Amino acid sequence: MAQNQVKIFDSTLRDGAQGQGISFSLEDKIKIVKALDDMQIDYIEAGNPGSNPKDMEFFKRLKDVELKTAKVVAFGSTRKPNINAEDDKNLKDLLSSGADTIVIFGKAWDFQVTDIIKTSLDENIEMIKDTIKYLCKKKKEVIFDAEHFYDGYKENKDYAIATLKAAEEAGAQVVVLCDTNGGTLPQEIYDITKVVKGQITIELGIHGHDDMGMAVANSIMAVEAGSRQVQGTFIGIGERCGNANLSAIIPILKLKLGYEILNNNELVNLTKSARYIAEICNITLTDQIPFVGSSSFAHKGGMHIDAVTKAPKSYEHIEPELVGNKRRFLVSEVSGKSTILQEIKKIFPNISKDDISVQKITDRLKELEYEGYQFEGAEGTVELVIRKIIGKYKPFFKLNHFKIIGEQPYGSEDFSSTAVINITVDGQNEMTAAEGEGPVNALDKAIRKALEVFYPELKQARLVDYKVRVLDSENATEAKVRVLIESTDGIENWSTVGVSRDVIQASWIALVDSIEYKLIKDIEKKVKAYF
Amino acid sequence: MAQNQVKIFDSTLRDGAQGQGISFSLEDKIKIVKALDDMQIDYIEAGNPGSNPKDMEFFKRLKDVELKTAKVVAFGSTRKPNINAEDDKNLKDLLSSGADTIVIFGKAWDFQVTDIIKTSLDENIEMIKDTIKYLCKKKKEVIFDAEHFYDGYKENKDYAIATLKAAEEAGAQVVVLCDTNGGTLPQEIYDITKVVKGQITIELGIHGHDDMGMAVANSIMAVEAGSRQVQGTFIGIGERCGNANLSAIIPILKLKLGYEILNNNELVNLTKSARYIAEICNITLTDQIPFVGSSSFAHKGGMHIDAVTKAPKSYEHIEPELVGNKRRFLVSEVSGKSTILQEIKKIFPNISKDDISVQKITDRLKELEYEGYQFEGAEGTVELVIRKIIGKYKPFFKLNHFKIIGEQPYGSEDFSSTAVINITVDGQNEMTAAEGEGPVNALDKAIRKALEVFYPELKQARLVDYKVRVLDSENATEAKVRVLIESTDGIENWSTVGVSRDVIQASWIALVDSIEYKLIKDIEKKVKAYF
Repeated sequence: MAQNQVKIFDSTLRDGAQGQGISFSLEDKIKIVKALDDMQIDYIEAGNPGSNPKDMEFFKRLKDVELKTAKVVAFGSTRKPNINAEDDKNLKDLLSSGADTIVIFGKAWDFQVTDIIKTSLDENIEMIKDTIKYLCKKKKEVIFDAEHFYDGYKENKDYAIATLKAAEEAGAQVVVLCDTNGGTLPQEIYDITKVVKGQITIELGIHGHDDMGMAVANSIMAVEAGSRQVQGTFIGIGERCGNANLSAIIPILKLKLGYEILNNNELVNLTKSARYIAEICNITLTDQIPFVGSSSFAHKGGMHIDAVTKAPKSYEHIEPELVGNKRRFLVSEVSGKSTILQEIKKIFPNISKDDISVQKITDRLKELEYEGYQFEGAEGTVELVIRKIIGKYKPFFKLNHFKIIGEQPYGSEDFSSTAVINITVDGQNEMTAAEGEGPVNALDKAIRKALEVFYPELKQARLVDYKVRVLDSENATEAKVRVLIESTDGIENWSTVGVSRDVIQASWIALVDSIEYKLIKDIEKKVKAYF
Repeated sequence: MAQNQVKIFDSTLRDGAQGQGISFSLEDKIKIVKALDDMQIDYIEAGNPGSNPKDMEFFKRLKDVELKTAKVVAFGSTRKPNINAEDDKNLKDLLSSGADTIVIFGKAWDFQVTDIIKTSLDENIEMIKDTIKYLCKKKKEVIFDAEHFYDGYKENKDYAIATLKAAEEAGAQVVVLCDTNGGTLPQEIYDITKVVKGQITIELGIHGHDDMGMAVANSIMAVEAGSRQVQGTFIGIGERCGNANLSAIIPILKLKLGYEILNNNELVNLTKSARYIAEICNITLTDQIPFVGSSSFAHKGGMHIDAVTKAPKSYEHIEPELVGNKRRFLVSEVSGKSTILQEIKKIFPNISKDDISVQKITDRLKELEYEGYQFEGAEGTVELVIRKIIGKYKPFFKLNHFKIIGEQPYGSEDFSSTAVINITVDGQNEMTAAEGEGPVNALDKAIRKALEVFYPELKQARLVDYKVRVLDSENATEAKVRVLIESTDGIENWSTVGVSRDVIQASWIALVDSIEYKLIKDIEKKVKAYF
């Protein structure tokens, strides 16, 4: 392999599945494999067929899935102590998985051999050798994961190295040094990897965990010391604090260190892929996640926004577009007219900065902020404020009245919430009611039910996130509340916000914005399709 | 300063406030300052008095807050180009903030001088010198934040160093090398810091950002190269991808590298403090966050659980108790009992650890946690759970029913909430109603009104804080909510918690606990006074 190439190895489906709350269906797994293959990930670890019948089923199913470049990998342990490799059930399962590449993990820390698997140090070496020899004879590419390598090296250097040499001799193509507990410091990773590099001739890899928040740095340090395979999970999921986050490691290796991985087209899909995989994992990526988060290139301070407008490199270490992300200016009290002008231009590109509406919109947003609104991540409401002032808005319905009833006890239930609503659209009246989990859920159901009579396209839209923030909470239940709603139609997401002394009214304001925003976007699409 | 001491500098209230969605009330800020002081954080950067009138107000308020050891710091920039330091409004504001320690940030990257603040390289050096000299003359301790230092060093080494020398000459006590854009690699941080260490005699600091997910590692590398101040935010909030996460840096410095920071007692409070600060910031700490997350020491794989049971160091790089966190097994719930025993002993000092109630209480609390309860900062509810199981509890009233009515429009008002309640105390029935700002406020008023007939001492009690947290917010308005209530009678404060799919019911649960807790405490006081 060329010196400037690094292979990327994803374990979302194996080590990632050990993360809290992660559970994949067979279809989820197929989707993730395809997404990783689209990203040109070199190795995809698909499961442990010997320990999990579902994984075995998945390997069978995978035989029918055509991949562009990725190699599917099966994971399993060295043979059991004191038996022949041929007789080990786990190894049989690895072979019948059909995977051409096998990861074998084995103990590299003497304490783990004697105290956990309770066998002799010599037998453990034999287990590594036998297992790998056997798989090589069966024409498999073998990667040896030296579990707890760094911890083992620190306690018994010679033994840890001996396990690697056993794997090398037996025919493994790569030995991967694992920081299984995530407790090794970056400098230690560098120094130890460097020593190993001098003693092992086959390729080295790194497998890091994030227990100290340093798995990305540790992976980079290992590469700088000579590792040429990086194992991790695409969005960092995994047991405890997770595995090394590949969506950070990939752009660092490529953009900062110039290694040959993927190609430019794939890097541009990084953000989209990370969000797609998060969706399948049913987890919310934190806004702050490096490179691919919604805040990764979001600027709030007025001075920063000003400087980034002059020269992006002022407060951006790379161009967001390189990883398919985008710059955002958070509309907040600290930011001024120039930020707001950028927002207006997204909707009305030809507006001049001296247009009287710009000042009016700025004043209105400030007034709302003073009342407790916060427009960061509430672009839907910002667009509606802009449209209302510029005059490119008309209401989609008129509320006549609504009523919420909460009762405890309620029949056999503890508690119940019901909403009754009465609206008018184009002179036509619609009255309906719905029960829900809480007053806001009931109101959400009722208004949708009423509006879908007139706007059936609303059926595609639903709420995905609902946040309540009590403002000045020292006033306790009399305090103002801010409600932030995120909605989706399956393609686009949008957020809206409402503030009131009453949580129901605040929710209502945000709900109405959410619905109107969706209806405006649908009209825009129709107009675009027509012209 | 001793060679093995590192000072911890927290910027939650300044740089942290630049994070998306972060907005602090004055009371929030006071709470955070106190929590940081309790943790023995050395420096607390409280705001930028020159750029924000709210920050100035906060500094005035801080004068009345007594701190144990922390120094409060005001942040501002070097004087404007071509004026005298005496005439600079920002410097005047810094002085009138009353803070004894001032952070001055200045440009260390030539490009930022010429292209962003648009002055000459020489004038920038003068700005640094004048500003620091002026503040030193006013007897302030000055820390110089060399903004973009690492980027600047890479493009113009001599100029970057010259800015540090200017600060040193002018009397600064510390120069902090900032990786403002978060784009510097760990090895670069180490090498550059090492060079600077050889040229500057005053103390060095590091200020990292997490744009590549390496701010923790970068901070550690800087310390290993000689930095003795680490700037960050306690839970890593901040602009874009956030600042260096102190809740990871602190235990690494202390437990892995043996630096003298905080003391053992404070480290034990790390998890509790991080969660408390997150609560005030109204953000949800990810389960995966190092050291202090709910999953940081959570094991899922059967093999791992087995090994950890044999020897925790098998899959834990430190003992979770060292940072006040705990081990969790995600499949079968175990442990926690000894912590709970401590809680029980607070109320019933003579209980034996083998008492059957201890197991029952442990089971009940775990069950509630599984439902979404969180007992950190909800001691009132914990006491009631304990009392109910031990049998030292009897209800103070019986709820017959309540009804909440919300109406929009309502007479001349936009919206109104009304609560009707019917209770029985000692066979005597009381029915009443109240209007409020929102359904929960109405319910709070109604239940108090009804109960005060029987328990006039409740008149002294009132709510001081009311927080709503949406759990599993992906289920939007159908999600579970957790309501945390803080109450006071003017002498003591207590907190209670309720969880339900319905915000009104969750609030009701927490309200009832709050009222019953108060009534129990009043009885206890009467008993004590009598005997």
